[in-house]
Amino acid sequence: MGKIFKITSFGESHGVLVGIIVDGVPAGLDFDLKFIQNEIDKRKPGQSKLTTSRLEEDQVKVLSGVFENKTTGAPICLVIENKDMNSSVYRKFKNFLRPSHIDYSALRKYGGFSDFRGSGRFSGRITSGFVMAGAIAKQILKKYDITIFAYTHSIGNIIDERVYSFDEIERLYEFREESQIRAINHERSILMVQLIEQVIKQKDSIGGTIKCIAKNFPAGKGGPIFNSIESNISKAIFSIPGIKGIEFGAGFKAARMKGSEHNDPWILKGGKIQTTKNDSGGIIGGISTGMPIEFTVAVKPPASIGIPQKTVNTKTMENVEIEFYGRHDPCLIPRVIPVVEAMTANVLLDFLLLEGYIPRVLES
Amino acid sequence: MGKIFKITSFGESHGVLVGIIVDGVPAGLDFDLKFIQNEIDKRKPGQSKLTTSRLEEDQVKVLSGVFENKTTGAPICLVIENKDMNSSVYRKFKNFLRPSHIDYSALRKYGGFSDFRGSGRFSGRITSGFVMAGAIAKQILKKYDITIFAYTHSIGNIIDERVYSFDEIERLYEFREESQIRAINHERSILMVQLIEQVIKQKDSIGGTIKCIAKNFPAGKGGPIFNSIESNISKAIFSIPGIKGIEFGAGFKAARMKGSEHNDPWILKGGKIQTTKNDSGGIIGGISTGMPIEFTVAVKPPASIGIPQKTVNTKTMENVEIEFYGRHDPCLIPRVIPVVEAMTANVLLDFLLLEGYIPRVLES
Amino acid sequence: MGKIFKITSFGESHGVLVGIIVDGVPAGLDFDLKFIQNEIDKRKPGQSKLTTSRLEEDQVKVLSGVFENKTTGAPICLVIENKDMNSSVYRKFKNFLRPSHIDYSALRKYGGFSDFRGSGRFSGRITSGFVMAGAIAKQILKKYDITIFAYTHSIGNIIDERVYSFDEIERLYEFREESQIRAINHERSILMVQLIEQVIKQKDSIGGTIKCIAKNFPAGKGGPIFNSIESNISKAIFSIPGIKGIEFGAGFKAARMKGSEHNDPWILKGGKIQTTKNDSGGIIGGISTGMPIEFTVAVKPPASIGIPQKTVNTKTMENVEIEFYGRHDPCLIPRVIPVVEAMTANVLLDFLLLEGYIPRVLES
Amino acid sequence: MGKIFKITSFGESHGVLVGIIVDGVPAGLDFDLKFIQNEIDKRKPGQSKLTTSRLEEDQVKVLSGVFENKTTGAPICLVIENKDMNSSVYRKFKNFLRPSHIDYSALRKYGGFSDFRGSGRFSGRITSGFVMAGAIAKQILKKYDITIFAYTHSIGNIIDERVYSFDEIERLYEFREESQIRAINHERSILMVQLIEQVIKQKDSIGGTIKCIAKNFPAGKGGPIFNSIESNISKAIFSIPGIKGIEFGAGFKAARMKGSEHNDPWILKGGKIQTTKNDSGGIIGGISTGMPIEFTVAVKPPASIGIPQKTVNTKTMENVEIEFYGRHDPCLIPRVIPVVEAMTANVLLDFLLLEGYIPRVLES
Repeated sequence: MGKIFKITSFGESHGVLVGIIVDGVPAGLDFDLKFIQNEIDKRKPGQSKLTTSRLEEDQVKVLSGVFENKTTGAPICLVIENKDMNSSVYRKFKNFLRPSHIDYSALRKYGGFSDFRGSGRFSGRITSGFVMAGAIAKQILKKYDITIFAYTHSIGNIIDERVYSFDEIERLYEFREESQIRAINHERSILMVQLIEQVIKQKDSIGGTIKCIAKNFPAGKGGPIFNSIESNISKAIFSIPGIKGIEFGAGFKAARMKGSEHNDPWILKGGKIQTTKNDSGGIIGGISTGMPIEFTVAVKPPASIGIPQKTVNTKTMENVEIEFYGRHDPCLIPRVIPVVEAMTANVLLDFLLLEGYIPRVLES
Repeated sequence: MGKIFKITSFGESHGVLVGIIVDGVPAGLDFDLKFIQNEIDKRKPGQSKLTTSRLEEDQVKVLSGVFENKTTGAPICLVIENKDMNSSVYRKFKNFLRPSHIDYSALRKYGGFSDFRGSGRFSGRITSGFVMAGAIAKQILKKYDITIFAYTHSIGNIIDERVYSFDEIERLYEFREESQIRAINHERSILMVQLIEQVIKQKDSIGGTIKCIAKNFPAGKGGPIFNSIESNISKAIFSIPGIKGIEFGAGFKAARMKGSEHNDPWILKGGKIQTTKNDSGGIIGGISTGMPIEFTVAVKPPASIGIPQKTVNTKTMENVEIEFYGRHDPCLIPRVIPVVEAMTANVLLDFLLLEGYIPRVLES
Repeated sequence: MGKIFKITSFGESHGVLVGIIVDGVPAGLDFDLKFIQNEIDKRKPGQSKLTTSRLEEDQVKVLSGVFENKTTGAPICLVIENKDMNSSVYRKFKNFLRPSHIDYSALRKYGGFSDFRGSGRFSGRITSGFVMAGAIAKQILKKYDITIFAYTHSIGNIIDERVYSFDEIERLYEFREESQIRAINHERSILMVQLIEQVIKQKDSIGGTIKCIAKNFPAGKGGPIFNSIESNISKAIFSIPGIKGIEFGAGFKAARMKGSEHNDPWILKGGKIQTTKNDSGGIIGGISTGMPIEFTVAVKPPASIGIPQKTVNTKTMENVEIEFYGRHDPCLIPRVIPVVEAMTANVLLDFLLLEGYIPRVLES
Repeated sequence: MGKIFKITSFGESHGVLVGIIVDGVPAGLDFDLKFIQNEIDKRKPGQSKLTTSRLEEDQVKVLSGVFENKTTGAPICLVIENKDMNSSVYRKFKNFLRPSHIDYSALRKYGGFSDFRGSGRFSGRITSGFVMAGAIAKQILKKYDITIFAYTHSIGNIIDERVYSFDEIERLYEFREESQIRAINHERSILMVQLIEQVIKQKDSIGGTIKCIAKNFPAGKGGPIFNSIESNISKAIFSIPGIKGIEFGAGFKAARMKGSEHNDPWILKGGKIQTTKNDSGGIIGGISTGMPIEFTVAVKPPASIGIPQKTVNTKTMENVEIEFYGRHDPCLIPRVIPVVEAMTANVLLDFLLLEGYIPRVLES
């Protein structure tokens, strides 16, 4: 993924490790491993009672591309090791197709040779690599005052309908960090947590939506057709397991609007050209308008639940009902949020490198 | 776009022509120009009172890649010429930023050098090229019994909520072709047409949604992460001007569901493994399940309306109110439908060529 | 080919036309069609008695990407039409494999569906597209004082061994333009012309070598491994039909040298770091050193000759001896020279756009 | 590099490790780590008195993509660690530009941030990754009876002019393995070794050429223009540090030949269409002919020598004469041979996967 800032993912959930190669990182960046570790910690399992009980240190290790604490311009390889694995349960269910899990698709694609343990290559754990790359991208973007922020927009039917300005959101950053589910609405967050607790009791799972906003992305970047910002962001976001939809600006609501409602009027404000509202989500014709880039993603409920389900035994070729078990998240939202932010950072940085807005060697 | 079946778009709305290069077309395909013309006619302006009054013949010309009525394996260049252009109106409004139009983004990206006439490179007319490429892709997919069908799911608040089986949809093909707005629900289509007629009277415009289904796409194609079917389809779909969102299977509804509702149970039916429902949209883990591939896209209301709007004069740098006029569509849906089908065909064919499922030389 | 400055080739030797799409051209360039036409004229058939007698006007037409005589930033489509075609001869020899021609390879790849007339897609005529793209690239590079110059280094055993400085070469530009074979050495050029005239009498053909030099390409561009300048230039050069080899700097001579001979000593001269000689060809570790980029390419003798040759009739599957005839070049060198220059320009410009050295919008 | 069989290189000479990610490896291959280790051992430093005295175990470790001893279809990450590093010498010479070394180019590209120790990212050690990838590719190609063989064609002026049939070469495989310099000509190999020993005494270095042949590569693979086999092989080969030239088939000799000499006549032999000789090097029009693919590469003498050299001190900006020292190879040829073979395997496999000749899941 990427044309200059390129990322290559490798590793499996229950293999030796999970990693990422980030090529095209400008030389001369102060390498802040603490920041990367901090980002990874947000995606780490076992953060709270609301996430899977798998325990991983997820200590980030740097294998290449950094010298005397600066990036060199060479590919950076970052890895985290796998430790708390329990593969026996996967072996037990090997011949049963878990509903809405990758089992059947993978069987057909890889002819039975794929690593089935912990969903192997399809595990959400793979996204740790995206987060590590994104943490580098965020550091570079920040030098250009570009920040990215995502939060829990809904869990099941509990929706945070409020429209926040970017400034408000930034003030709520600390709140989000302390919120178990990364919401920024106090009242809604209580209901969301209650809903998840209830779902845990039912051995079930629940979906949700995430809103993501990028501030200060300059106008005039991106392009029409295949090079559109939406094309590149959506491609990156759908690389995250469990995503079912994405909409920019007014999104699906735009489909119900008239042009006179949806159009964002241009206005001069303090000598700067901007729009009075942002139903376009900061992008028109695939190119940035200078307004915040805004989009919402739909995340499905985790497929792994503790309730008996109908499925097929591929060995005996019989219809069966079976109860799968294992350690899983009741809701993906809190742990997907850092991944969505990271992927957005990776895509936006690539655009700015490609257009020469950010140079290939950074000033100290 | 594409790895084997590659398309390269060129041309402008008010330039000489609009065209497409399609590379990677297997050799030996009977080249059916009539079919391509027929697909282009579905996207053509002036089809009915519900579309723009620009009149174009849109006659498809073949410039390369076909010999003795067969594809040769060489790049195929297809073009349509521009004839009924009226550029004076665009020249008049040159210094005014049309709200939710590409004017400002393009100004910032191309420094004022882009062809502003008829939105130039950003015009929906560019998608004619996608349709021509898609018409080739459809012909090849059809040899493998893979068909793609899109229809109007909603116009404004008029929504066709019915869930159709693919067989039903196929029976409704003729109905859709005769429907001015490419709906397949008789009753709803009447309301939709009425809504558009009302919008025309108001000199306004209206958005809508499109549902697209692909049948008989084989299981086990696509891949995890960056190679996911969703990543590739969404990238292609967001290349179409006016798209604000995309969702696969249950999509944003999945975000409100529990795992026990959303999971698609596996079942043996006639010796074949399938799911009893298709909330996954035919894709799990980025890979096809063998069930129909289903997605919905949100299309914004056209930005061009005949109602006075607030904006900025970039020459005088003043806030102004202005009424733009020109020939435009009140609703994009009917003409975007063939484009969505075409882009889906382009993406799905590329996957099948890439995995060797469809060979590089076709049998007669 | 290319990452930002991307070219897509289409057309066939005996089809409607031959063309090129050039994407990624910076906006705001004064579009000099005369210069492009002038470059194409250098590659045109029928320039002198030493080239094929096929007569083509090769008038360059602009189909997109230019508006009010400036580049817009949109893809530029340039074409030349085919007129003086005589396909009957190709039809006659359809079942015979011309030695060292594409017939057999193409048969195996395209299953007999490829356009065999005039070698179709494999014709040297395809390189007209490269030259048109290169003419655009040269115009942009010239704004940054970067010039590219190629000349005839040898025809058969007549070799121009002299080492020219770039300044000398520039003074010889006019000479080259008037030389029928694009040599810059007066005495050698006479012998070269004599050799070709002799080869024409023998109905045979002859190979040769071309030296190409690029001046003022800035230091520090390119990259190690897959992004090396040599990798990218060689990839582009081997896209030209008839090329058998490429060497940079001392090239194959370096293989016979000791390190103490081959190493280029660094020296400060006028405050500027440079090397006292340039056996490295201006590239070390895949990255430019600021010295001229120099390479030599080997061009094979044209496969089309008028002497009886042994081959196979693929219809009867018999060994036969046959005399092919048609209109062909006795030596490719003079007409390949503008192609080599063009391809070098395309590659070097792409590097400079990719590193942000040349911006995406040009100042007037 | 690559479209399906993609390799991503990372690591530095004096960093933690050197590695490669190989994506697109078909699932179901018996993973033969011994074979990979064996290939790496051929490139390992310290094999004989004729190579650098750096001592590395170069033990290959598998970090991902293999499960129950089979490839899974997921990216395979292979690494070797760096152990015997002596970086102090590089630190000492940090401000001096080593002639024909990467120092100046890298300084200009990376602004002084690159890892200078042992040439860091530009070290020949990076090619270990290519060899590991190539070892996987070779295993797959072998299942389809395709073998690749490279040998020492010349060291300095000692040239092995003999033309070997592929069968002869295969019989000489053991001889090459035991030869310190990977030559296959007994008499010449003695002279080559003597020459290198003499060069070592002089603290100098020497260049050479390598011939590489691939047998049983099927006809009809590759493509015209940018997709030519030569374009792809040359791109890969010039990724190897120290390569100055490449020629296919008759190569630079073809430039001196007439068409009647160079053309390879077609002949029916045992019902099979083939050529009586192979000056085309198994490729015509960028596409394979079914004859062996043959090419020769020129390798420069190592830039590191123990003789005083003129250069510049970039700190004081003065011309100086200095004697660099360190542990280096007197001649790169023996250790580059496995790299050339590996890169060829990587490219050829990618072509066969891309054309569906080799499936994405291998039969046991």
